[in-house]
Amino acid sequence: MRYWEDFDVGEVSELGPVTVTEAEIVEFAERFDPQPFHVDPAAAAQTPFGGLIASGWHTTALFMGMFVRAVLLDTASLGSPGVEEIRWTAPVRPGDTLRGRTIVTDVRPSGTNPTRGTVFTTNEVVNQDGVVVLRLKARGFFARRP
Amino acid sequence: MRYWEDFDVGEVSELGPVTVTEAEIVEFAERFDPQPFHVDPAAAAQTPFGGLIASGWHTTALFMGMFVRAVLLDTASLGSPGVEEIRWTAPVRPGDTLRGRTIVTDVRPSGTNPTRGTVFTTNEVVNQDGVVVLRLKARGFFARRP
Repeated sequence: MRYWEDFDVGEVSELGPVTVTEAEIVEFAERFDPQPFHVDPAAAAQTPFGGLIASGWHTTALFMGMFVRAVLLDTASLGSPGVEEIRWTAPVRPGDTLRGRTIVTDVRPSGTNPTRGTVFTTNEVVNQDGVVVLRLKARGFFARRP
Repeated sequence: MRYWEDFDVGEVSELGPVTVTEAEIVEFAERFDPQPFHVDPAAAAQTPFGGLIASGWHTTALFMGMFVRAVLLDTASLGSPGVEEIRWTAPVRPGDTLRGRTIVTDVRPSGTNPTRGTVFTTNEVVNQDGVVVLRLKARGFFARRP
Protein backbone atom coordinates (compact mmCIF):
# COMPACT_ATOMS: atom_id res chain seq x y z
CA MET A 1 0.00 0.00 0.00
CA ARG A 2 1.41 3.35 -1.05
CA TYR A 3 0.63 6.44 1.03
CA TRP A 4 1.05 10.16 0.32
CA GLU A 5 4.65 10.00 1.57
CA ASP A 6 5.48 7.42 -1.11
CA PHE A 7 4.95 9.74 -4.09
CA ASP A 8 8.01 11.63 -5.31
CA VAL A 9 8.11 14.63 -7.62
CA GLY A 10 9.31 13.46 -11.03
CA GLU A 11 7.98 9.93 -10.65
CA VAL A 12 6.72 8.61 -14.01
CA SER A 13 4.11 5.88 -14.50
CA GLU A 14 3.30 4.25 -17.82
CA LEU A 15 -0.38 3.43 -18.34
CA GLY A 16 -2.28 0.99 -20.54
CA PRO A 17 -2.58 0.05 -23.32
CA VAL A 18 -6.29 -0.05 -24.05
CA THR A 19 -7.95 -0.48 -27.44
CA VAL A 20 -11.32 1.13 -28.14
CA THR A 21 -13.90 -0.34 -30.51
CA GLU A 22 -16.59 1.33 -32.61
CA ALA A 23 -19.26 -0.42 -30.54
CA GLU A 24 -17.81 1.01 -27.31
CA ILE A 25 -17.55 4.51 -28.80
CA VAL A 26 -21.19 4.45 -29.88
CA GLU A 27 -22.47 2.87 -26.65
CA PHE A 28 -20.70 5.44 -24.44
CA ALA A 29 -21.85 8.33 -26.60
CA GLU A 30 -25.48 7.19 -26.82
CA ARG A 31 -25.59 7.50 -23.04
CA PHE A 32 -23.42 10.51 -22.39
CA ASP A 33 -22.64 12.49 -25.56
CA PRO A 34 -25.08 11.66 -28.39
CA GLN A 35 -23.73 14.10 -30.96
CA PRO A 36 -23.88 12.77 -34.55
CA PHE A 37 -20.10 12.46 -34.96
CA HIS A 38 -19.99 10.20 -31.86
CA VAL A 39 -22.99 7.92 -32.54
CA ASP A 40 -23.69 7.82 -36.30
CA PRO A 41 -20.88 6.68 -38.64
CA ALA A 42 -22.68 7.89 -41.76
CA ALA A 43 -23.38 11.35 -40.31
CA ALA A 44 -19.85 11.51 -38.89
CA ALA A 45 -18.39 10.94 -42.36
CA GLN A 46 -20.01 14.22 -43.47
CA THR A 47 -18.39 16.28 -40.66
CA PRO A 48 -14.90 17.79 -40.58
CA PHE A 49 -13.83 14.71 -38.57
CA GLY A 50 -14.41 12.48 -41.63
CA GLY A 51 -15.75 9.59 -39.56
CA LEU A 52 -16.81 8.43 -36.14
CA ILE A 53 -14.75 9.77 -33.21
CA ALA A 54 -14.95 9.04 -29.48
CA SER A 55 -16.49 11.53 -27.10
CA GLY A 56 -13.74 13.43 -25.35
CA TRP A 57 -15.32 12.28 -22.09
CA HIS A 58 -14.90 8.68 -23.25
CA THR A 59 -11.22 9.31 -23.93
CA THR A 60 -10.90 10.88 -20.49
CA ALA A 61 -12.66 7.89 -18.89
CA LEU A 62 -10.33 5.50 -20.73
CA PHE A 63 -7.38 7.46 -19.34
CA MET A 64 -8.83 7.16 -15.83
CA GLY A 65 -9.29 3.41 -16.22
CA MET A 66 -5.64 3.03 -17.19
CA PHE A 67 -4.49 5.36 -14.40
CA VAL A 68 -6.49 3.58 -11.69
CA ARG A 69 -5.28 0.13 -12.75
CA ALA A 70 -1.63 1.17 -13.10
CA VAL A 71 -1.33 3.53 -10.13
CA LEU A 72 -4.28 4.15 -7.81
CA LEU A 73 -5.34 0.60 -6.90
CA ASP A 74 -2.14 0.08 -4.91
CA THR A 75 -2.53 3.32 -2.97
CA ALA A 76 -4.44 4.91 -0.11
CA SER A 77 -6.36 7.07 -2.59
CA LEU A 78 -9.07 9.27 -1.08
CA GLY A 79 -10.54 10.66 -4.29
CA SER A 80 -9.97 13.93 -6.09
CA PRO A 81 -11.30 17.47 -5.79
CA GLY A 82 -10.88 18.16 -9.50
CA VAL A 83 -8.70 18.49 -12.56
CA GLU A 84 -7.34 21.34 -14.71
CA GLU A 85 -6.88 22.00 -18.41
CA ILE A 86 -8.31 18.98 -20.15
CA ARG A 87 -7.20 19.18 -23.79
CA TRP A 88 -8.56 16.83 -26.45
CA THR A 89 -5.73 17.37 -28.90
CA ALA A 90 -6.63 14.84 -31.62
CA PRO A 91 -9.59 12.58 -32.40
CA VAL A 92 -9.79 9.02 -31.04
CA ARG A 93 -11.17 6.67 -33.69
CA PRO A 94 -12.46 3.07 -33.69
CA GLY A 95 -9.62 0.59 -33.31
CA ASP A 96 -7.19 3.06 -31.78
CA THR A 97 -4.85 1.71 -29.09
CA LEU A 98 -4.12 4.22 -26.34
CA ARG A 99 -1.32 4.43 -23.82
CA GLY A 100 -0.81 6.99 -21.08
CA ARG A 101 1.91 8.58 -19.00
CA THR A 102 1.60 10.26 -15.61
CA ILE A 103 4.26 12.47 -14.03
CA VAL A 104 4.11 13.60 -10.40
CA THR A 105 4.66 17.37 -10.43
CA ASP A 106 4.09 18.31 -6.79
CA VAL A 107 3.22 16.82 -3.40
CA ARG A 108 1.70 18.89 -0.59
CA PRO A 109 0.50 17.99 2.89
CA SER A 110 -3.01 19.13 3.73
CA GLY A 111 -3.14 22.50 5.45
CA THR A 112 -6.14 21.43 7.52
CA ASN A 113 -6.06 17.63 7.85
CA PRO A 114 -2.88 15.97 9.18
CA THR A 115 -4.03 12.54 7.97
CA ARG A 116 -3.94 13.35 4.25
CA GLY A 117 -2.01 15.06 1.49
CA THR A 118 -2.36 15.96 -2.18
CA VAL A 119 -0.40 14.62 -5.16
CA PHE A 120 -0.38 16.71 -8.35
CA THR A 121 0.20 15.12 -11.76
CA THR A 122 0.40 16.00 -15.43
CA ASN A 123 -0.92 13.33 -17.75
CA GLU A 124 -1.05 12.55 -21.42
CA VAL A 125 -2.53 9.85 -23.62
CA VAL A 126 -1.09 8.92 -27.05
CA ASN A 127 -2.44 6.68 -29.79
CA GLN A 128 -0.68 3.90 -31.71
CA ASP A 129 0.92 6.49 -34.02
CA GLY A 130 2.37 8.48 -31.13
CA VAL A 131 -0.13 11.30 -31.57
CA VAL A 132 -1.15 12.94 -28.28
CA VAL A 133 -4.95 12.73 -27.98
CA LEU A 134 -5.42 13.96 -24.39
CA ARG A 135 -3.60 16.11 -21.86
CA LEU A 136 -4.77 17.02 -18.37
CA LYS A 137 -3.49 18.15 -15.00
CA ALA A 138 -4.92 16.29 -12.05
CA ARG A 139 -4.69 16.11 -8.29
CA GLY A 140 -5.60 13.43 -5.84
CA PHE A 141 -5.96 13.10 -2.08
CA PHE A 142 -4.05 10.30 -0.34
CA ALA A 143 -3.95 9.13 3.25
CA ARG A 144 -0.67 9.77 5.06
CA ARG A 145 1.20 6.81 6.47
CA PRO A 146 -0.38 5.97 9.86
CA MET B 1 -30.39 24.77 -36.17
CA ARG B 2 -28.44 27.20 -34.00
CA TYR B 3 -25.11 28.51 -35.25
CA TRP B 4 -22.27 30.34 -33.46
CA GLU B 5 -24.02 33.67 -34.08
CA ASP B 6 -27.07 32.46 -32.14
CA PHE B 7 -25.32 32.23 -28.76
CA ASP B 8 -25.45 35.33 -26.58
CA VAL B 9 -23.36 36.11 -23.51
CA GLY B 10 -25.51 35.65 -20.44
CA GLU B 11 -27.78 33.04 -22.00
CA VAL B 12 -28.80 30.44 -19.41
CA SER B 13 -29.88 26.86 -20.14
CA GLU B 14 -31.40 24.51 -17.59
CA LEU B 15 -30.32 20.86 -17.92
CA GLY B 16 -31.79 17.54 -16.85
CA PRO B 17 -32.89 16.09 -14.53
CA VAL B 18 -31.22 12.69 -14.48
CA THR B 19 -31.32 10.15 -11.67
CA VAL B 20 -28.37 7.81 -11.11
CA THR B 21 -28.71 4.29 -9.69
CA GLU B 22 -26.27 2.20 -7.68
CA ALA B 23 -26.08 -0.29 -10.57
CA GLU B 24 -25.07 2.48 -12.98
CA ILE B 25 -22.47 3.86 -10.55
CA VAL B 26 -20.88 0.43 -10.14
CA GLU B 27 -21.05 -0.45 -13.86
CA PHE B 28 -19.39 2.82 -14.93
CA ALA B 29 -16.71 2.53 -12.26
CA GLU B 30 -15.88 -1.10 -12.98
CA ARG B 31 -14.96 -0.01 -16.49
CA PHE B 32 -13.37 3.37 -15.90
CA ASP B 33 -12.61 4.02 -12.21
CA PRO B 34 -12.55 0.79 -10.18
CA GLN B 35 -11.59 2.31 -6.83
CA PRO B 36 -13.23 0.59 -3.82
CA PHE B 37 -15.47 3.54 -2.93
CA HIS B 38 -16.92 3.49 -6.47
CA VAL B 39 -17.46 -0.26 -6.96
CA ASP B 40 -17.81 -1.96 -3.55
CA PRO B 41 -20.57 -0.74 -1.20
CA ALA B 42 -19.14 -2.61 1.81
CA ALA B 43 -15.64 -1.25 1.29
CA ALA B 44 -17.04 2.22 0.59
CA ALA B 45 -18.83 2.22 3.94
CA GLN B 46 -15.42 2.02 5.64
CA THR B 47 -14.03 5.09 3.84
CA PRO B 48 -14.48 8.77 4.76
CA PHE B 49 -17.30 8.85 2.16
CA GLY B 50 -19.40 6.51 4.33
CA GLY B 51 -20.83 4.64 1.34
CA LEU B 52 -20.74 4.20 -2.39
CA ILE B 53 -20.15 7.37 -4.45
CA ALA B 54 -20.07 7.91 -8.20
CA SER B 55 -16.78 8.39 -10.00
CA GLY B 56 -16.26 12.06 -10.68
CA TRP B 57 -15.91 11.12 -14.35
CA HIS B 58 -19.35 9.53 -14.19
CA THR B 59 -20.78 12.76 -12.77
CA THR B 60 -19.06 14.69 -15.53
CA ALA B 61 -20.44 12.30 -18.17
CA LEU B 62 -23.94 12.69 -16.72
CA PHE B 63 -23.55 16.47 -16.99
CA MET B 64 -22.50 16.09 -20.64
CA GLY B 65 -25.49 13.89 -21.38
CA MET B 66 -27.82 16.55 -19.99
CA PHE B 67 -25.95 19.36 -21.79
CA VAL B 68 -26.02 17.62 -25.17
CA ARG B 69 -29.72 16.79 -24.94
CA ALA B 70 -30.73 20.27 -23.72
CA VAL B 71 -28.40 22.41 -25.81
CA LEU B 72 -26.01 20.83 -28.32
CA LEU B 73 -28.33 18.60 -30.35
CA ASP B 74 -30.06 21.63 -31.85
CA THR B 75 -26.80 23.30 -32.85
CA ALA B 76 -24.01 23.21 -35.42
CA SER B 77 -21.62 21.85 -32.78
CA LEU B 78 -18.16 20.97 -34.04
CA GLY B 79 -16.75 19.46 -30.86
CA SER B 80 -14.58 20.90 -28.14
CA PRO B 81 -10.86 21.45 -27.66
CA GLY B 82 -11.09 21.07 -23.87
CA VAL B 83 -12.41 22.21 -20.53
CA GLU B 84 -11.03 24.03 -17.48
CA GLU B 85 -11.31 23.69 -13.72
CA ILE B 86 -13.45 20.63 -13.16
CA ARG B 87 -14.42 20.64 -9.48
CA TRP B 88 -16.17 17.68 -7.84
CA THR B 89 -17.53 19.63 -4.91
CA ALA B 90 -19.67 16.98 -3.19
CA PRO B 91 -20.23 13.23 -3.58
CA VAL B 92 -22.93 11.85 -5.89
CA ARG B 93 -24.67 8.88 -4.28
CA PRO B 94 -27.06 6.17 -5.50
CA GLY B 95 -30.54 7.58 -6.09
CA ASP B 96 -29.40 11.18 -6.44
CA THR B 97 -31.29 13.29 -8.97
CA LEU B 98 -29.08 15.81 -10.75
CA ARG B 99 -29.90 18.98 -12.62
CA GLY B 100 -27.53 21.35 -14.39
CA ARG B 101 -27.23 24.94 -15.48
CA THR B 102 -25.09 26.38 -18.28
CA ILE B 103 -24.30 30.07 -18.70
CA VAL B 104 -22.66 31.48 -21.83
CA THR B 105 -19.75 33.63 -20.67
CA ASP B 106 -18.06 34.59 -23.95
CA VAL B 107 -18.33 34.14 -27.71
CA ARG B 108 -15.35 34.59 -30.02
CA PRO B 109 -14.95 34.14 -33.78
CA SER B 110 -12.06 31.90 -34.81
CA GLY B 111 -8.87 33.79 -35.52
CA THR B 112 -7.92 31.36 -38.27
CA ASN B 113 -11.12 29.81 -39.64
CA PRO B 114 -13.91 32.14 -40.85
CA THR B 115 -16.44 29.28 -40.86
CA ARG B 116 -16.42 28.68 -37.09
CA GLY B 117 -16.38 30.29 -33.67
CA THR B 118 -16.04 29.36 -30.02
CA VAL B 119 -18.66 29.58 -27.26
CA PHE B 120 -17.42 29.66 -23.64
CA THR B 121 -19.62 28.47 -20.77
CA THR B 122 -19.58 27.99 -17.04
CA ASN B 123 -21.56 25.03 -15.79
CA GLU B 124 -22.76 23.54 -12.56
CA VAL B 125 -24.67 20.45 -11.47
CA VAL B 126 -26.73 20.29 -8.27
CA ASN B 127 -28.41 17.37 -6.52
CA GLN B 128 -31.97 17.08 -5.20
CA ASP B 129 -30.94 18.96 -2.03
CA GLY B 130 -29.53 21.90 -3.95
CA VAL B 131 -25.94 20.90 -3.17
CA VAL B 132 -23.52 21.71 -5.98
CA VAL B 133 -21.73 18.48 -6.95
CA LEU B 134 -19.86 19.63 -10.07
CA ARG B 135 -18.53 22.85 -11.57
CA LEU B 136 -16.59 23.25 -14.79
CA LYS B 137 -15.73 25.79 -17.46
CA ALA B 138 -16.08 24.56 -21.01
CA ARG B 139 -15.75 25.74 -24.57
CA GLY B 140 -17.13 24.45 -27.80
CA PHE B 141 -16.64 25.05 -31.51
CA PHE B 142 -19.68 25.89 -33.61
CA ALA B 143 -20.13 26.47 -37.32
CA ARG B 144 -20.96 30.04 -38.33
CA ARG B 145 -24.17 30.69 -40.19
CA PRO B 146 -23.55 29.95 -43.89
